[in-house]
Amino acid sequence: MNISIIGTGLLGGSFALGLKSIKEDHHFIGVDINNENARLAKRLEIIDEILNFKEAVGKSDLVVLSTPVNVIKHQLCEVLDILPEGSALIDLGSTKEIFSEMVADHPKRNQYISCHPMAGTENSGPEAAFSGLMKHKQMIICEPDKSDKVLLRWIISIFKKLDMQISYMNSVEHDRHIAYVSHLSHISSFALGLTVLEKEKDEQSIFAMAGSGFSSTVRLAKSSPDMWAPIFKQNATNVSIALEAYINQLRQFKEIIDSGAEEKSHKLMEKANEIRRVLMGIEKG
Amino acid sequence: MNISIIGTGLLGGSFALGLKSIKEDHHFIGVDINNENARLAKRLEIIDEILNFKEAVGKSDLVVLSTPVNVIKHQLCEVLDILPEGSALIDLGSTKEIFSEMVADHPKRNQYISCHPMAGTENSGPEAAFSGLMKHKQMIICEPDKSDKVLLRWIISIFKKLDMQISYMNSVEHDRHIAYVSHLSHISSFALGLTVLEKEKDEQSIFAMAGSGFSSTVRLAKSSPDMWAPIFKQNATNVSIALEAYINQLRQFKEIIDSGAEEKSHKLMEKANEIRRVLMGIEKG
Repeated sequence: MNISIIGTGLLGGSFALGLKSIKEDHHFIGVDINNENARLAKRLEIIDEILNFKEAVGKSDLVVLSTPVNVIKHQLCEVLDILPEGSALIDLGSTKEIFSEMVADHPKRNQYISCHPMAGTENSGPEAAFSGLMKHKQMIICEPDKSDKVLLRWIISIFKKLDMQISYMNSVEHDRHIAYVSHLSHISSFALGLTVLEKEKDEQSIFAMAGSGFSSTVRLAKSSPDMWAPIFKQNATNVSIALEAYINQLRQFKEIIDSGAEEKSHKLMEKANEIRRVLMGIEKG
Repeated sequence: MNISIIGTGLLGGSFALGLKSIKEDHHFIGVDINNENARLAKRLEIIDEILNFKEAVGKSDLVVLSTPVNVIKHQLCEVLDILPEGSALIDLGSTKEIFSEMVADHPKRNQYISCHPMAGTENSGPEAAFSGLMKHKQMIICEPDKSDKVLLRWIISIFKKLDMQISYMNSVEHDRHIAYVSHLSHISSFALGLTVLEKEKDEQSIFAMAGSGFSSTVRLAKSSPDMWAPIFKQNATNVSIALEAYINQLRQFKEIIDSGAEEKSHKLMEKANEIRRVLMGIEKG
């Protein structure tokens, strides 16, 4: 089977490596506007061959779009236009509503399956890809009823081979929720990084003191701006609402700290501790 | 040698276990107003004996105060009052200026060494303690010139046996910096947890989507309110300034997202990416 990975970075590369690691006998074709990335992906044996967009799609049984979301937006219909009959297109983007709209009236809409793996790291590029990234992670499939049943069943079987858990959602709901549990985390981390870097200008010694707590909270601030700027733009309305709620929460904390009301801050943190139950769920996976 | 651990939780317990793991032949005495914690620490072989405060201090070569900072504040002089000649007192609290003030005029000031290990986890209590917690971490010693030279040298030799790196700072500077690299991280995480929990009330399915990024950013929201409420109170001025800077940073992000200025958000994240160099330093640490 020919599988084209369009965007040979962290997600697309890890998807390919995951399938290779379970000895699925596929031929992986890499497509990347960044030649260097494509060559690196080939050298790292993530892909077996480099082709241009048209050639690759034309001979693919499966096309995986793992480019930044602003690029996916344009590529969805471009792929469908030339996708062979019986082949499938999936994307791995972090926003979903806009893609649903883009393909809504395309005659080959049912060859597209809208996917979002809840998997990633703060690193990017082919050298960040690894075979275990998808393992035990959630794969959210949006509007499964709009995809061809047979193709959908086949795509799900691939995800299951990668030990992923499947859940279903409509794309509007997806984008609203993901603003809270993924996009907001990234902004909180980017902003924390900026705040401390700004402070460092005057206080060179500040980082000698940073420990593992700081490190884990600010980890996502290392994430790729090429990937995240378009995500925040496409999901701006939901992200803005989540961000407003977060800022209000921080303001409340600040008022309590300014007023010296230790009991109130204790109560607030007790409430926050309930996140344990959530995190246990995630870690159980 | 007799070492008293006052507050047999994560930090005090890990300090004791660290020394036990390198086969230092000490007798560890546990003191805890929470009897259950003390008994648990004994059962876990963190301490060898449980005594009350006075008995323990009276026969100690070294007293380690690892209670919450509001408790340390009162215990510092209580320990010094009855500490045998030639013995040392250290504390492991996350604030330092207020302690400097408390002991400033105490006749036994020079038996006290003001310490802050840049080590911790989001867990608490004796069962959270582990022997490797202090390993390769920074130990900040404040105002070393106010401590007896011989005692200081001895305490440093103990920290070095635990493979810790020592740095020195005055306590005012310590509290200002720590607000950024530790206290602010915790608030950002507590507030993120609260924001998402609040949202969850309406949206039960939200957490099925949370992945490792959310998990790492919100990890510190599991931290103990008993420990953190007094820290935020004691370091309120510095924490408030750091929090204001963080909120302004988030506001800037929100304005950029609201205005749709993708390039500006890209630039902001590029700047935040510089945190890589800092984190590399921590991870090398």
